[in-house]
Amino acid sequence: MNDPDGAAQDGNRSYGHKPFKRSRSHFADRITADGRDGWPVVADRYRLVVSRACPWASRALVSRRLLGLESALSLAVADPLQDDRSWRFTLDPDGRDPVLGIRYLSEAYDARERGYPGGVSVPAIVDVPSGRLVTNDYQQITLDLATEWTALHRPGAPDLYPEPLREEIDEVMEGIYRDINNGVYRAGFADGQGTYESAYEALFRRLDQVSQRLADRRYLVGDTITEADIRLFTTLVRFDAVYHGHFKCNRSKLAEDPVLWAYLRDLYQTPGFGDTVDFHHIKQHYYRVHTGINPTGIVPAGPDLSGFLTPHHREQLGGRPFGDGTPPGPVPAGERVPPRHRP
Amino acid sequence: MNDPDGAAQDGNRSYGHKPFKRSRSHFADRITADGRDGWPVVADRYRLVVSRACPWASRALVSRRLLGLESALSLAVADPLQDDRSWRFTLDPDGRDPVLGIRYLSEAYDARERGYPGGVSVPAIVDVPSGRLVTNDYQQITLDLATEWTALHRPGAPDLYPEPLREEIDEVMEGIYRDINNGVYRAGFADGQGTYESAYEALFRRLDQVSQRLADRRYLVGDTITEADIRLFTTLVRFDAVYHGHFKCNRSKLAEDPVLWAYLRDLYQTPGFGDTVDFHHIKQHYYRVHTGINPTGIVPAGPDLSGFLTPHHREQLGGRPFGDGTPPGPVPAGERVPPRHRP
Repeated sequence: MNDPDGAAQDGNRSYGHKPFKRSRSHFADRITADGRDGWPVVADRYRLVVSRACPWASRALVSRRLLGLESALSLAVADPLQDDRSWRFTLDPDGRDPVLGIRYLSEAYDARERGYPGGVSVPAIVDVPSGRLVTNDYQQITLDLATEWTALHRPGAPDLYPEPLREEIDEVMEGIYRDINNGVYRAGFADGQGTYESAYEALFRRLDQVSQRLADRRYLVGDTITEADIRLFTTLVRFDAVYHGHFKCNRSKLAEDPVLWAYLRDLYQTPGFGDTVDFHHIKQHYYRVHTGINPTGIVPAGPDLSGFLTPHHREQLGGRPFGDGTPPGPVPAGERVPPRHRP
Repeated sequence: MNDPDGAAQDGNRSYGHKPFKRSRSHFADRITADGRDGWPVVADRYRLVVSRACPWASRALVSRRLLGLESALSLAVADPLQDDRSWRFTLDPDGRDPVLGIRYLSEAYDARERGYPGGVSVPAIVDVPSGRLVTNDYQQITLDLATEWTALHRPGAPDLYPEPLREEIDEVMEGIYRDINNGVYRAGFADGQGTYESAYEALFRRLDQVSQRLADRRYLVGDTITEADIRLFTTLVRFDAVYHGHFKCNRSKLAEDPVLWAYLRDLYQTPGFGDTVDFHHIKQHYYRVHTGINPTGIVPAGPDLSGFLTPHHREQLGGRPFGDGTPPGPVPAGERVPPRHRP
């Protein structure tokens, strides 16, 4: 698939021509315990490249934190503003990722397949020794972090994709993907009033359904945090800041749904979730990159985000956030989101 | 001044060049009881031309209703979508205003001053016998309806600009005009991040101040509805539907401020206010005309407006909406906003 950038560019190109369609991931090699694709799980071999703006990449940011993979899988954070060569490391000294030594993520794509015509997207995992992209398969990366990287998990890491619940998790995630995760993009990059309205209807129908589901249960599936919660979180946390206005997903704010708003605050305040979120990167990216829908590039000063830190009272529903495990420790130095980029 | 259309066009033209600046009214003749400008108050002589989309024109719609001037001053409602010749009567049979016989409001401007280079704006009052524009002075029109047209007021019409309170009303309206009525336009048509942010700051500072003022008093000045309430109303009623997203006035929705939201519902539910409001015209106009900030022309399906009809409990603050007067009667047939354009 394409990252929001790729999506934006597709979306911009598509006005009046075709409905927004998310591309499939081109590089779908898997990094596994048995190394069957040639990429075995090894500490310190791979580098995860993300943008903190991107909801798909942010899934991997949350999983990596919850599972305690920070020391095994290092992190490169791209500038929220791409240029015509896409994601770049302009936040780093000399505009170069200090580990990969590259200025653009596209260089790792080129190292993997010269002349690849598709978009450059995050999340991406790059093989450090060869500098080659291994995978940009956002749907698989987090599942593999949860199930293949277990030897490198921290003590007390939760099981984010428990075997007996996978069928239910997959089913819940499918509807959330179609109508919510991708639905907000279908609304925001619609090619016309009709396609916009059908995305909008499906989005709020699904949000209402999810809200009902979460009214008396703390998490989406079972009584612990799973992959499904991570995937819902990365869209919900952006909802009022970007999707509500910029993508016209404006039946109501997320904060106007008491259940979803409390659920979101609960996760936000859980170590490993909110500490990965950079609202400055999020807003800068969406409002300045998508010139097809925001030609002025002016970034809204709102919304007021202070509510994220208010009590959510979801503990009263029970649930064991980390199951038999424990919360992750503090964010490693060097990976902390600056206080001015947080609520 | 220019109507939202004129404003939009100025705004669009101004990106990167100059901050948004509202033009002054060019035609400022007054229709008075003594006819000193040559335009005496006479029943059935003039026609009020509005767009229901336009907050400035909507002031006159509300005043006319509250004062019961419907039978003395007839009404022409323009299409919410202007074309390159500006406001037009495409909602009427054959695209022609049935009383003035013109297709474009600009024809009345031309009849008044051939080759006038300024914008065509609503509200406008046209002299029916001559077909000439009398005034487009939005700041004066409603004051004159309240104070000069008294001989034609209905029995029980309220005093919307009571002599002893005028100083206070003027002072309150001045801040509301600068920071709220016009402030939302300064935010929406800002030429850059800095001018946007200063408009945004001033807007929410003033809204907070007004909210505090209204916490324990039902109306802005005195204990009855005045011109000040009308002017605040026409901006607040559009806030969540257009200014919040389209103009990036998004610190919070109006509906998130309990005081302002109850105040707005109170007025909306008062005869003469809500019955003039056409949300369909409002949304169509802003989102389809301002292509400089919404190039796709897609109109958001939200927000959910059903809250406008919920109890506001502001009666508990006392106040006498119409003072010694009475509420206006029902909306004349032929002027009713279609139910599908209302919450």
